[in-house]
Amino acid sequence: MNTQEQLTRYVANFVDELSKSGLTDVVISPGSRSTPLAMMFAEHPQIKEWIVLDERSAAFFGLGLAKQTKRPVALLCSSGTAVANYFPAVVEAHQSRVPLIVLTADRPHELRDVGAPQAIDQIKLFGDYVKNFHEMALPEGTVEMLNYVRTRAARSVSEALSGNPGPIHLNFPFREPLTPDLNLENIWGEPLREPYHIWHEGKKRLPEDFLNYFAEKLSIARRGLIVCGPQVDEELAEGITMLAETLGVPVLADPLSQIRTGSHSTKNIIEGYDAILRNEVIRASIKPDYILRFGAMPVSKAYLFYLKENQDVTQYVIEPHAGFREPVGNPTEFIQADPVLFCSDLLEVSPTLLSEENDWLTKWKSYNDIAKSHLTKTSDNTLTEGEAVKQLVDVIPHNSSLYVGNSMAVRDVDTFLMTSSKKLTILANRGANGIDGMVSSGVGAAASGQPVTLLLGDLSFFHDMNGLLAAKQYKLNITILVVNNNGGGIFSFLPQAANEKHFEALFGTPLNIDFKKAVEMYDGNYHQPKTIHELKKALQLSYGELGLSVVEVKTDRTENLIWHRGLWRDIEEDILKLVEQ
Amino acid sequence: MNTQEQLTRYVANFVDELSKSGLTDVVISPGSRSTPLAMMFAEHPQIKEWIVLDERSAAFFGLGLAKQTKRPVALLCSSGTAVANYFPAVVEAHQSRVPLIVLTADRPHELRDVGAPQAIDQIKLFGDYVKNFHEMALPEGTVEMLNYVRTRAARSVSEALSGNPGPIHLNFPFREPLTPDLNLENIWGEPLREPYHIWHEGKKRLPEDFLNYFAEKLSIARRGLIVCGPQVDEELAEGITMLAETLGVPVLADPLSQIRTGSHSTKNIIEGYDAILRNEVIRASIKPDYILRFGAMPVSKAYLFYLKENQDVTQYVIEPHAGFREPVGNPTEFIQADPVLFCSDLLEVSPTLLSEENDWLTKWKSYNDIAKSHLTKTSDNTLTEGEAVKQLVDVIPHNSSLYVGNSMAVRDVDTFLMTSSKKLTILANRGANGIDGMVSSGVGAAASGQPVTLLLGDLSFFHDMNGLLAAKQYKLNITILVVNNNGGGIFSFLPQAANEKHFEALFGTPLNIDFKKAVEMYDGNYHQPKTIHELKKALQLSYGELGLSVVEVKTDRTENLIWHRGLWRDIEEDILKLVEQ
Repeated sequence: MNTQEQLTRYVANFVDELSKSGLTDVVISPGSRSTPLAMMFAEHPQIKEWIVLDERSAAFFGLGLAKQTKRPVALLCSSGTAVANYFPAVVEAHQSRVPLIVLTADRPHELRDVGAPQAIDQIKLFGDYVKNFHEMALPEGTVEMLNYVRTRAARSVSEALSGNPGPIHLNFPFREPLTPDLNLENIWGEPLREPYHIWHEGKKRLPEDFLNYFAEKLSIARRGLIVCGPQVDEELAEGITMLAETLGVPVLADPLSQIRTGSHSTKNIIEGYDAILRNEVIRASIKPDYILRFGAMPVSKAYLFYLKENQDVTQYVIEPHAGFREPVGNPTEFIQADPVLFCSDLLEVSPTLLSEENDWLTKWKSYNDIAKSHLTKTSDNTLTEGEAVKQLVDVIPHNSSLYVGNSMAVRDVDTFLMTSSKKLTILANRGANGIDGMVSSGVGAAASGQPVTLLLGDLSFFHDMNGLLAAKQYKLNITILVVNNNGGGIFSFLPQAANEKHFEALFGTPLNIDFKKAVEMYDGNYHQPKTIHELKKALQLSYGELGLSVVEVKTDRTENLIWHRGLWRDIEEDILKLVEQ
Repeated sequence: MNTQEQLTRYVANFVDELSKSGLTDVVISPGSRSTPLAMMFAEHPQIKEWIVLDERSAAFFGLGLAKQTKRPVALLCSSGTAVANYFPAVVEAHQSRVPLIVLTADRPHELRDVGAPQAIDQIKLFGDYVKNFHEMALPEGTVEMLNYVRTRAARSVSEALSGNPGPIHLNFPFREPLTPDLNLENIWGEPLREPYHIWHEGKKRLPEDFLNYFAEKLSIARRGLIVCGPQVDEELAEGITMLAETLGVPVLADPLSQIRTGSHSTKNIIEGYDAILRNEVIRASIKPDYILRFGAMPVSKAYLFYLKENQDVTQYVIEPHAGFREPVGNPTEFIQADPVLFCSDLLEVSPTLLSEENDWLTKWKSYNDIAKSHLTKTSDNTLTEGEAVKQLVDVIPHNSSLYVGNSMAVRDVDTFLMTSSKKLTILANRGANGIDGMVSSGVGAAASGQPVTLLLGDLSFFHDMNGLLAAKQYKLNITILVVNNNGGGIFSFLPQAANEKHFEALFGTPLNIDFKKAVEMYDGNYHQPKTIHELKKALQLSYGELGLSVVEVKTDRTENLIWHRGLWRDIEEDILKLVEQ
């Protein structure tokens, strides 16, 4: 077997086994050293390749696609700083548990650390941010080595998915010549070959005696609270809401919990808890006996204050695998079990918990009704940031995804996304909460074919405008709602805002740029509604348009601050009247 | 001392000592956790702060400024993926020996690895790519701790600069509240205080007996060759060219050697060596007795072939400090000495080496004359890529900087930059040769106040369009010449180009976007010349314009390939006639 055939068979067996293990998509950034893998991916009939030039965007595109599909996505780039550009998305994938297979091409060993062009040390480049790193062997064509690459491909997909999902990094040294021979016979090995390895992963389940003890414990406590933070399992909604109704307890549901909207019962869901919990007196009036939390810690800062004031309350945190997500520092009982099975198992052993309405639940519901009456109030057609989000969640299509930016966007969705039967998948990059890579994440989610709306602020939109290129090139259908307050709106809510001398330069950071030109550059449809009515129309129009549609709403940071604070004060005042009774 | 005063004094002493140690510029990306340092930098009278939103661009902006000024530049960002966005520029700074002080704000220890928002593991995040990492203590106000931060500030500047320069990473844990008290008395400590520490760094110098022995050795060999690859010391030109003239040997000078142009004598400089060395027969006709190389390995691939074919030739590589830059694998004698002192010391011990013209030098010069006669030939006004670069180096102002992009740009400058008395600083990111961060690097260099021209291709321009924001916001004067061949032009020169099925999608990667819109978005002047004459006029005009000026030349990848290959063939044929004589 000559060198080219060895290279070809080595790489072909690897790519084919990725496919056999369930990989369907690869995001490729152009480069020379990665040629063997790039050409083999392009040749493989079952893998779809997406070419994304900017590696930072490419990695977030893969992240968004993997978040949307819950399937691993492969990334491929050449050697050098290309690899380093993947880092932000790799960090986010690690923090938010998203399966990625990061494939980086490298110079062979004799060209490393000797001043060769585009050669950097890629060994363990992502440090502890990947679940596994493996330096691949140089291509060889023996049966042993073809089995080795098939094993590594299969293992990597399994490792990315098992337990808490996350990124895997494989580094491939390649020698020149780099071009594989695509005319080789039987390039993919035996066509009907079974996957080389198969994994069957069990789920953690608690023993019946613990479940009985635990159900008993919850039934004695009168004022329980179920909290559901960010999580992606859409099957969990049914279990949590049934459990809450059986226990007769409210559910504080984060917008990223996937349980605010959908066909399940939402009657115990308290969407307004962020507004409710902003006041200390109100918080004191609803002290719980226990908290049972699913998912990560919620976005709401008010909830964190509430938690801090209730350090003596038993907190149970359910984690499907390992993981310590308790930033407040309260003592916690961690329950390691599959959350869906935990709910159904618990319901099974305790069919007759408190099922009726009770004072505790009623109180939460009455507070929530007050909050909702303010939050859903129809406006005078003035297009504030909050109104923009309200309109969006109103007109966004059933069975679609909403990808939410960090900073103000996710907080406004927390405030204004009310329960409904609309089926929505709410995605966000809440692992590290960066404002980077959002456009690519949204566009990557849209690459799944699912209708996607991306909501984000102007700084976040600016940060990853390069992400629009993929939307243009692949004619992906996506609506992007940019709430443009010309700078960092969230900082106005922080104490830094009091410093008049440096605030605007260091934190306000207005961009003063016309995004319409960027949208035109990427052949997108552009709308700039000025009123609530126009916004609604623009959004509805955008869902009928092909390709990229950007709806820009221009707002004012100071007005936004006043509007939000006014709303929260009104809610506070009305609830306080109830507390004082 | 209350907590706020402790925070304030801790951070103020740190910032002040950076300034006392010579730091003049900091690039700040907005964030909340970094507030104490950001506000203190803004307050410090001697430090200029540059606010750059996109952290990837910010780091390259700092890199470009540091490359231009040869002074360390500080970077400051908040916690989370912001830090990871610095990675590409940190890698480049490490590889190309540029001093950066990377300051990252972090959550305090109790908020790490517990699911707190925007908290990622920042300890040693850049791995071996920084010269030193230090996790800072939490702010305290004792005399000991204020001395500690002054020491760390001073050390970091010294460490970034000493030996081979490079990046230093300091990670600062900060607790809320984050706002310092800018009204404290005596905030910077004693105003006339001396720097806390001072370093005096010596230079490596070889003993006289070695110099005598070495001079003797060189004088015996008849056919010596001096090679000068990428290096930044502008004082070296004088020494190298005098040494070459004394030894009677040619100098192969990389475009990034800083010796092709300037007021020194350039009569032994062979600029056309990349064209000359493309042919095997020609290479064989000019076998050297020894090679004395300064700087990194040259850009030219033809030179690498020449080197590989001369493995038996003694190669001396001069390195000012540690460093192994010999990718070809030829046996090498490494000379660790300050290059400028090495030249002057060698000249001193051997004033009467071969100083006259000799056959060897004459042969190189005659080859070079042939190459130059083709390379400088006036064209028929057709605007090819090569012509664009020829015109640029012709009209670029004396005493200015040319920042050169990777891929085709640096190769075209290698081909077309001829010796002249014009004083030019030629900068590039040749540590890792990335196409990322180029716009920011150029704009950062322009932030020094020096006139800067940036030459790059369309993919590189696209990759870092975000870098244009700083040019707009700070009204920086920069001319950017974009050679737009609508895709990855360099790949047409590689074997991959033979694959018709996948080439265009995987390697050609046309963007098909209208850069004029991007330039308008950033309030830049835009020119799109169609002829050589128009290009010359546009460039000249741009040097008179304020702020950002982008000159876009549209070319064709296939025509470019044919044009370059034709030129090289013509040179080859003419030199071969001489070889055969």
